[in-house]
Parts: sequence; C-alpha cells; structure tokens
Amino acid sequence: MNTLQIIKVGGKLINDPIELDKLLTAFDRISDPKILIHGGGRKATELSQQMGLEVKMIDGRRITDADTLEVAVMVYAGLVNKSIVAQLQSKGTNAIGLTGADGNIIQAIKRPVDDIDYGLVGDIQYVDGQRIKRLIDVGFCPVFCAISHDQKGQLLNTNADTIASVVAQSLAESYDVSLKYCFEYDGVLHSIDDPDQTIDSITEDLFHSMIDDGSINAGMIPKLSNGIDALKGGVAQVAVCGIHNLKSLDNATLISL
Amino acid sequence: MNTLQIIKVGGKLINDPIELDKLLTAFDRISDPKILIHGGGRKATELSQQMGLEVKMIDGRRITDADTLEVAVMVYAGLVNKSIVAQLQSKGTNAIGLTGADGNIIQAIKRPVDDIDYGLVGDIQYVDGQRIKRLIDVGFCPVFCAISHDQKGQLLNTNADTIASVVAQSLAESYDVSLKYCFEYDGVLHSIDDPDQTIDSITEDLFHSMIDDGSINAGMIPKLSNGIDALKGGVAQVAVCGIHNLKSLDNATLISL
Repeated sequence: MNTLQIIKVGGKLINDPIELDKLLTAFDRISDPKILIHGGGRKATELSQQMGLEVKMIDGRRITDADTLEVAVMVYAGLVNKSIVAQLQSKGTNAIGLTGADGNIIQAIKRPVDDIDYGLVGDIQYVDGQRIKRLIDVGFCPVFCAISHDQKGQLLNTNADTIASVVAQSLAESYDVSLKYCFEYDGVLHSIDDPDQTIDSITEDLFHSMIDDGSINAGMIPKLSNGIDALKGGVAQVAVCGIHNLKSLDNATLISL
Repeated sequence: MNTLQIIKVGGKLINDPIELDKLLTAFDRISDPKILIHGGGRKATELSQQMGLEVKMIDGRRITDADTLEVAVMVYAGLVNKSIVAQLQSKGTNAIGLTGADGNIIQAIKRPVDDIDYGLVGDIQYVDGQRIKRLIDVGFCPVFCAISHDQKGQLLNTNADTIASVVAQSLAESYDVSLKYCFEYDGVLHSIDDPDQTIDSITEDLFHSMIDDGSINAGMIPKLSNGIDALKGGVAQVAVCGIHNLKSLDNATLISL
C-alpha cells in the first residue's frame, strides 16, 4: 500500500504567519499523497469581538450558538482555509479546501444535550474515505478545516484533532496512513519548563497514568486521545511533532497502543 | 457530447432564504452534470459595517483593500458558499464548494492600475476546465464563489458573472454547455415598470443599441456582455432567466450572436 501522510496543524501555528509559512513549505515538500487538516487560531475570537458578539461559556466550555457558528464558518472555512490553499498553490501543492459538507465527506450529528447544550457542535458519525481517495486519485491535495455537517443543511463546529483522527481512520484500508499532530514543540514534553526534552514514545497506559498524575498538559489530552483512537482504527503511525520533524520524526513523540 | 448546465445565481436571490431555497431545489432537480456559480449578496456589506470598516469608493467604484478582501473571502468562500453546499447536500446534490484557488482552477492577475487602482480585484487569465471536469467525472457538483487567485498566494475578488462565463467557456470543448444567468425576473425586461414582459431574445447588435439608447438596466450589462463572450467562446446556449424557468426557459431571454 502507498503511504498517505496526514498532517494536523494547530491554532498557535496558524496564528503566526512566519511559522505557518514554514509549516506550509515543509508540507509542500512531503511526497503525495497527503492531506492537511487545520485548526482555527485566534482570528475567530478577534472577529467575534469586532462584531460585538459575546463569547458564551458554560462551565468553562465555549458554546457554539448560531452567531458563533457563522463566525467559525467564515474564519475556518473561508479566511483560514482559503488562505492556506492559495499559499500551498503558490508553492506547487495542488490544494483543494474542504469542510465536511463538501462532497458529504464528514457526516456528523449535533452533539446530544446531556447536562450541557454545546450548541451547534458536531459529533462525527461517518467519514467517506472513498470520496477523499477519489480527490487524491485525480490529483488534488485535500485541506480540511474543522467544520462538519448534519446532512440536513446544518454546518457544525467540530474538533480539529478529532477530524484528523477520523479522516485518518477512514483511509486506513486504502493506505499506510501516517498521522502527525504538528504543533509548536518538537513532541510531548516531560515538563513545560524544558521545551527541549521530549518524550520519545507514549503508550496508552502511560497516557492514562500521565492524566492521573497530572503531568500532562490539558491541551495535549485531545491529541493523544484522538491519536490512540486512530491507532485502534488501523492507522499505521501516529506522532506528535513540530514543523522541523515533519519528515524525520527525530525528537517527535510516537504514540503506541 | 453531454449537456452541462451552468447556473449563475445573483446576489438578490442569495439574500432571501426562501428564494434561495427555491433556487437550490430547482438546481437539485437538474440532471448531472451541473455547476452552480454564486454571487455574494449583501452579507459582506453588513459584516463590514459590523466590523466598523469603511466602504472605499473611487468614482463610484468599490475598492477592494486588504480588509475588504478578507470580508469577501469570509462571506463568499466561507458563509455563503458552505451554507449553499450544506443545503444542496441535504437535497441530494453532491456539492463541493470552491474558490478559484482550489485546485488552481481559476487563475487571475490583480487588475493592472490604470486611472484607478481597484485593489485586490482579479482579471481572469485562465480557467482549468480539465480539473473541473475531473471533479465532475468522479461524482462531484462544483459550486464556485467569486474569488480567484494570482498563483502567488494572493486571493482576489472577482466578478461572478465573468467567472460564470469563463468557466462555461473552459468546458465548451468537453460538453454542450448551457449557461443560465438566474436572477429575480423571468428574463431581460422591456421595461422595469412591467416585470411580466420579457424580451425573448437579444442579439449582440440589439444589446449594443439598447446600451446606446439607455433602455437597458445597468445591472444587466455585465450579464449580457459576459453572456455574449460565452457564446463567442463556444458555449452552446446562454440565457437570462428566473428560478421558474431553469428547466423550460419559457419567458426567459436567450442571448445570440
């Protein structure tokens, strides 16, 4: 089977034009086939403030009401996604920017209301890997933002780390998939005070014990949890890494079961 | 050759959710292959106002500065395009939302500065019809907004009527292309005071004499001018019509050379 590289890039890299350009240059140099999945960055918050919208929080969780969703669609699917596509095209990568509604590729339902109504947030039900593969087969490089849809006309805000994991799983039968969560450090850190000391490898057991003893940063948990799901779903390799090790994985953190 | 239907839908229909839904229902019922191209509507102006941006005009022409372009990309490529895609998917059309940067399909240059610097406005140089056809061949229905790019990383605001014309021309060797400019009337009106009386057919000569005697609405001129270009570029049929005659063309205005 061919190797398919899937790179997820987080919000902090998106916020910094110089770092984003480095990331896109590194991504352009990866051999096809490849997929980029990106988070949102802080522009959505800035736009909400400019528009005078209130950020709605319940128990520290952000609630996606209709106005917030509009902003997310405008920023993630519009500004961020299409700017990345234009930049990748300028470097020679034949990018095509997508939400989960495009081609009905990422099908979700509005998260069921339990204690909290998160609003217009999508829980993913199905990813149509065959349609992604068809785009790749005819020469396109898919670039996904973190918006899905409910197949009834409603777009839904969705976690980008989760999208990366489920997209990777949907292609595991067609390719040897390598999924890399790319962020501002070289890998998962032993300690936030020492950004040069990365952990070589994290097993599922180590991950759970790190959660229990509080030694893992809260922001890392969704990446590792989604990474473990990806491995369980047949993805060949999952790593947490920085821009510099998109190719070599030196210093990166490999996730294993 | 197969017939390819290309429908361009204007801003006023986009602004009205009920009319837009009627249009999308009618579009869904058209047999494949088909392409939708949409204008922007007034949301971009509303968002600019909410953000406190000034609309910059020179000699009655709107200037696209960097802030204005950001708004156009957010609204046209984000909110409007992806809402249309999600709605079409809910009706059963396998829509995929695109700018001209996606797949490097619509290549433009920033309009050269003559007397006026229009800013980040694209003059189209080339449309890659083969890449559009590839998307159609693997089962997608392209939905274009009016954003192109310069292949150097810059997105550009572009006239939607022109995009419809050049996209249609780019596919004229592969299909019998029927291009319909769909708007709020059934066709070109003899007089704005009598919206039921449409002109059956407009030749290039009649079009120019209507411009000369001032009997044509200013908003109609780009549609007809782009429609005539489309016919000269090999498009089989060009019409100006309303939602009700997307299929039958009764009362619609046919353009001819």
